[in-house]
Amino acid sequence: MAHALRLAERGLYTAQPNPRVGCVIAHGDAVVGTGFHRRAGEPHAEVYALREAAGRARGATAYVTLEPCAHQGRTPPCSDALIAAGVARVVIAAEDPFPQVDGRGIGKLRAAGITVESGLMREAARELNIGFFSRIERGRPWVRVKLAMSLDGRTALANGESKWITGEAARVDVQRWRARSSAILSGSGTVLADDPRLTVRLPEDEEFTPPLRVLLDRQLRIPAGRQVLDGTAPTLVLHGAAASCADDRFARVERMAMATRDNLLDLQAVLALLAGRDCNEVHVEAGPTLCGALFAAGLVDELLLYVAPLLLGDSARPLLRLPPLTDMASRWQLQVVDQRMLGADLRLRLRPR
Amino acid sequence: MAHALRLAERGLYTAQPNPRVGCVIAHGDAVVGTGFHRRAGEPHAEVYALREAAGRARGATAYVTLEPCAHQGRTPPCSDALIAAGVARVVIAAEDPFPQVDGRGIGKLRAAGITVESGLMREAARELNIGFFSRIERGRPWVRVKLAMSLDGRTALANGESKWITGEAARVDVQRWRARSSAILSGSGTVLADDPRLTVRLPEDEEFTPPLRVLLDRQLRIPAGRQVLDGTAPTLVLHGAAASCADDRFARVERMAMATRDNLLDLQAVLALLAGRDCNEVHVEAGPTLCGALFAAGLVDELLLYVAPLLLGDSARPLLRLPPLTDMASRWQLQVVDQRMLGADLRLRLRPR
Repeated sequence: MAHALRLAERGLYTAQPNPRVGCVIAHGDAVVGTGFHRRAGEPHAEVYALREAAGRARGATAYVTLEPCAHQGRTPPCSDALIAAGVARVVIAAEDPFPQVDGRGIGKLRAAGITVESGLMREAARELNIGFFSRIERGRPWVRVKLAMSLDGRTALANGESKWITGEAARVDVQRWRARSSAILSGSGTVLADDPRLTVRLPEDEEFTPPLRVLLDRQLRIPAGRQVLDGTAPTLVLHGAAASCADDRFARVERMAMATRDNLLDLQAVLALLAGRDCNEVHVEAGPTLCGALFAAGLVDELLLYVAPLLLGDSARPLLRLPPLTDMASRWQLQVVDQRMLGADLRLRLRPR
Repeated sequence: MAHALRLAERGLYTAQPNPRVGCVIAHGDAVVGTGFHRRAGEPHAEVYALREAAGRARGATAYVTLEPCAHQGRTPPCSDALIAAGVARVVIAAEDPFPQVDGRGIGKLRAAGITVESGLMREAARELNIGFFSRIERGRPWVRVKLAMSLDGRTALANGESKWITGEAARVDVQRWRARSSAILSGSGTVLADDPRLTVRLPEDEEFTPPLRVLLDRQLRIPAGRQVLDGTAPTLVLHGAAASCADDRFARVERMAMATRDNLLDLQAVLALLAGRDCNEVHVEAGPTLCGALFAAGLVDELLLYVAPLLLGDSARPLLRLPPLTDMASRWQLQVVDQRMLGADLRLRLRPR
C-alpha cells in the first residue's frame, strides 16, 4: 500500500478535480502491475495496473489507495475491470465518499466473490486527497492559507516593502503548494499592493493542471493591466452586487457577483461556489485582512507559515488582522502538523486544534 | 572526547563561573579514569580522573575538554598533576583563553615530554562553555534572550494578559536555560506587570548555582513586596544616578547606580559590569522595550524563542519594540541554530548572522 500511495502522489499536480489514486497488483512480494491516475478523463489507476499485469492479475491481490469506482463515468467502472481480470483479493486504503461510489465498489467486488479489506494506511490515503474528501464530505474545499513572516510576525515594512522576506527555497516550495491546489484565492488589496501573477512556476518537465485564480474584489477595484487579469490562467473575479465596471479590463477573465456580509464578500458562499466548481484544495495568498477574516470565520483548515529568521520590529505590518481578544481562552488555537527548514527559513504547517 | 564532553555537561548548572570541563583517561579503548568539574573551589576534572586511574594513569592518554591549567588557583595546577601521574599523551578539545593559562598548560606538558594534541571536537567544547569564552575573549557575557510568543508574534493580549502562552514543556525547558546562566536579567516593566520570581525551579535532586537576578530599574520604580526583592536569591538592582529610595524595600538586595544613555541604563556598561562579576551566560527575560533595545544595540548573542501554536491578532502586544525600518536591507538578520517541538510549542534558537 505504501508503494501504491507513492504512485498516487504522482498525480498530485494533475489528477484534480479527481482524487490521486495509486494501484499495485501483486502475488505475495512479486509486483505484477502498477498504475496511478494521472488526469481526469484518462484511465484510473486500476486500469493501468491491470493492463501491465495482463494474465498475471488472475488470483492476485490488488492494493488500491481509494475504493474502486462502481459507476460509469468518463471511464468504465474499475470494480468491473478487477472482477473481469480474476483478481482474488482487493485491499483498499480509504473508502470513496463520492455518492456514486460510497461502498458500492466494495459491494460489487464482494458480490463477485473477491475478498475485500479496507482501512490499510487509511489516514495517509485520506491525507493525500484531503481536499477531495473535504469537498465531498463537507461541501467545501480544504482551505490552506499561506503566509510568510519575520520572526516577530511581520509581513512587510510599514512602507509596504516586502520583497523578499523569505529565501529562494521557500519561494520554490510555495509553487508546489500552488500546483497541487485547484484554486488560488487572493484579494484586491494584494493585487493592488504586489501585482502578483498567482500562476504556477514549476521546472519545465513537470506537468500540472493550472489552478483557477480567484480574486475577491468587492468593489471591482483591480485596475487594468494587472497580471491576474492577463488571461494566462483561468481566472474568476468575484465582486459585490453593487459594483460595476464599464471598461474592458475584465475581458479575459470570468466575473461573478456574490452576496456580501460585513463589508466583505460572503466567504462561506465563496467556498461553496468553489466546491461546486470541483475545487478540492484552495490555496490562499492574501493580505492580513482577508486571511484574518478567514481565520475569524473558522474557515481555515491549514496554515502554511514560512518564518524568515529576521526581525522587522513593531512598526512593520502585522501577520493577520483579527478581532481584538479580551481573554486568552478565546485565542485561535492550532497545532503544528510538521516543521522543517527550507534554506535559512522555517516552514510550519498547522491546523486548527 | 565525546565521553569527556558528556562528563563536562554534568557541571552545566554548577561549575560557573568556572568552565564546564570533563576528562577521560584511557589506554586505547580501556577507560581507567573519568572526572568532571562540579563546582568552583572543588577539584578540576583531571584530578578526579587521575584519582580514579591511580597507577593506571602511567603511560595513558588523557582526553580533556579544556586545556589543563598551569597556575595555582584555589586548586593546584592540573598540568603538574598530569605530569606527576606519568600520563604519556594529552588530547585537548579547546585551548583555554584565560590569561593565566592560554597555552601555558600545553607548554608545561610538552616541556615534560608529554605528547599534546589540541582541537579534537573543539567546536563542541567551545559551545559548551560559550559564556566562559565570551567573557574571557570579548569581555562580556553571552547574552541569550528568551521570548515566548504566539504564531503571529504576540506576547500578550492588549490588556496585558499573557498567562500562559506556552505550555508546560516549554516552561520547564526555560528553567534549564535559567539554571545554566550566571545571571537572569529583567526590567522594572516586567516586574511591575508580571511580578516574576526569576529563580530556578528544577527537580529536587538536581543541583544548580543560583543565578544572580539583575533588575534594570532606572527610576527605582519596583514597589515593595515584589518577589524579586524577597532575598531568596542573590539580586542586583541597577538604577540611574538620579534615582533614590527613602524606604527599605531594597533592603534584601544589592543596589548600584549606573550611567544612563537615551533614557535607558547603558546596556554595554551593564554587560561589562556583569562580566566583571564573572557572569558567563546572561539569560534575559524582559519585555519588548528592553529586549528590543538589546537587539537594536547589537548586544544579543542568541534568541531563545518559544512559539505557541495560537493566534492573538494584531491588537495584541508586539514581540519587540525596535526602531522603524525604512528598507529591507537594514532588517535584523539571524539564523536558526536549532528547532524542536516541546509539547505543542516550537522552540527556536537563533543567532545573529
